[in-house]
Amino acid sequence: MLEQTISRIGLLNQAAMTAAERHQGLLAIPRGSLGRLHEFCVRLAGITGNPRPEITDLALITMAGDHGVADQGVSLFPQEVTREMVANFAQGGAAINVLARHIGARLTVVDMGVAGPLPALPVGNDSSMRLIHRRVGHGTADMSRGPAMSRDEAIQSLEAGIQVFGEERSRGLHAVGTGDMGIANTTPSSAIAAVMLKCAPEDVVNQGTGIDGDALRHKVEVVARSLSVNKPDREDPLDVLAKVGGFEIGGIAGVILAACAARTPVVVDGFISTAAALLASRFHPGVRDYLFAGHQSAVLGHKLMLDDLALSPMVDLGMRLGEGTGAAFGLSILVAASRISREMLTFDEAEVSDPQAGRQSP
Amino acid sequence: MLEQTISRIGLLNQAAMTAAERHQGLLAIPRGSLGRLHEFCVRLAGITGNPRPEITDLALITMAGDHGVADQGVSLFPQEVTREMVANFAQGGAAINVLARHIGARLTVVDMGVAGPLPALPVGNDSSMRLIHRRVGHGTADMSRGPAMSRDEAIQSLEAGIQVFGEERSRGLHAVGTGDMGIANTTPSSAIAAVMLKCAPEDVVNQGTGIDGDALRHKVEVVARSLSVNKPDREDPLDVLAKVGGFEIGGIAGVILAACAARTPVVVDGFISTAAALLASRFHPGVRDYLFAGHQSAVLGHKLMLDDLALSPMVDLGMRLGEGTGAAFGLSILVAASRISREMLTFDEAEVSDPQAGRQSP
Repeated sequence: MLEQTISRIGLLNQAAMTAAERHQGLLAIPRGSLGRLHEFCVRLAGITGNPRPEITDLALITMAGDHGVADQGVSLFPQEVTREMVANFAQGGAAINVLARHIGARLTVVDMGVAGPLPALPVGNDSSMRLIHRRVGHGTADMSRGPAMSRDEAIQSLEAGIQVFGEERSRGLHAVGTGDMGIANTTPSSAIAAVMLKCAPEDVVNQGTGIDGDALRHKVEVVARSLSVNKPDREDPLDVLAKVGGFEIGGIAGVILAACAARTPVVVDGFISTAAALLASRFHPGVRDYLFAGHQSAVLGHKLMLDDLALSPMVDLGMRLGEGTGAAFGLSILVAASRISREMLTFDEAEVSDPQAGRQSP
Repeated sequence: MLEQTISRIGLLNQAAMTAAERHQGLLAIPRGSLGRLHEFCVRLAGITGNPRPEITDLALITMAGDHGVADQGVSLFPQEVTREMVANFAQGGAAINVLARHIGARLTVVDMGVAGPLPALPVGNDSSMRLIHRRVGHGTADMSRGPAMSRDEAIQSLEAGIQVFGEERSRGLHAVGTGDMGIANTTPSSAIAAVMLKCAPEDVVNQGTGIDGDALRHKVEVVARSLSVNKPDREDPLDVLAKVGGFEIGGIAGVILAACAARTPVVVDGFISTAAALLASRFHPGVRDYLFAGHQSAVLGHKLMLDDLALSPMVDLGMRLGEGTGAAFGLSILVAASRISREMLTFDEAEVSDPQAGRQSP
């Protein structure tokens, strides 16, 4: 299923992009004055094949998983918080629930492998969300002592993401945003970034949920040890995911690959989702054409990953929460762009004088 | 009415801000991880006096006016485009109509003094918009030859803005965004910026709708001439508005003053709205506490004005259209912030473990 999905990732539709660009130039505004919204409209056209695509059905997919490396004291928060936050998602009380409602997206939370049994969940308070289980295991193994998971489990986590995307798509879906929940998951994400970007752990290891000083230095050391113990092969994204990844990171990468294969725009969230996007882009270089960076995270290393993917963030609000909160803002901007392309009148339609004909946009 | 409005502008409510800050610290997330959304929540509390205010009823007010200085060839577009765009607003086909619908705001377009008679307008296509007339004149006089308007007209334009805000408020209003339409209006806005910021015209004169080269150099010269002909007194914002302002700029400044007096948050748009905000802030220094900068405009000089107002833009999408399009994105983010403060659960409510008690936010 993984290989088949990857093989279906195609090029952007140049004809649709040319038509979209032409249409943007006809809108009754000074040429180019909507800035990046024009660029988004053109890329949405290339992705969907429709010069003026409708982007109304939105899903946020938040993948949750636990990490054995939490044992190394890399997070301020205890591991049970992953489980507790999944319960919070289920009752509609987390930031991502609020932002999903705000932008009119449905929210699917996926238990990709939270440690310990989930408590009885009060699902139903938030009718726009659902919780599903695609558990690959009870959290990963401690990557500072050996591989986080087996190669088979890495494939399983990717394929779970592919399946979840497929279910979402069958419910109707024009654009998807990714998110994560997993105590300690900035640690594997930093390891992935260090491998993929060929940089030192200290260039990408960050405060995560809020550590500093000695704890931060210790986290750098744990990432360095994980890399030297496992020696992940940067030419083989599956090897990197298995050795220093996480179930939810694989799940997000699977969602991204499936979305690309289905020509659906993907808004990635912050540090963890972008690490997953890095992995996905190593399975197929065409992936980045389908990606939008929801926001610039406030944590170190995120910008390096975005640069590698040639992505420029849509907003920068100094956030560093994850869950998909940055993706939510980006999705809303994509909807705005698509509405611009569908609902605005041209100079001719609006009977507005246009002195720009034949001029280049300044 | 103007003086009475200004006299009602008060300080932020410190008790509400302290309560809001405390509440933000209890939310079930790593402390501070929602970045600027926390800051917005706290300021919304200070403005409204409510630690967890509801921000759902939104209005965008787009003020339109014409400018005699258009005769000097400072814009790429002919003056009749102001009138044509007002007609476009009325039929719901402009960018601001689309974005108002996108964020769920109603749109009020105010004819503050468009040149020539407006054509019969097909109002009603867009039920979320209304067009009203508060004409101070048939466009301003050419400021490069003398004052743009009389001191009485300047007061009239401010008071029209105050009245329009009052009407909006009586329809129910939690936050307001400002916008503008007026061919050539980056020219008076540049003049206002140069006076208020004590800088050279070339530091703030920009491409506007899309001029460059000789046309841009000519525009700098027109602004310099307008300042030397009129000698506006920077200590007297009414004098500046009368000599080098515009009817819609005065109208926007009036909306801002009235919103501050009514303790209503105001999201200002780009270059023209921010010039109006500069004027408003010179009538009362407390004005800036009530302002949010919707976006960073792509044009030269906008950042200098925002810096003077100590405002940091909410988004930067490279836009330079006006109409209120940047304010629309900012309003939507304010709504998100208010929902965060009202709908998210705390650590206690969500039964999530919190190891942060007693720690400082990193």
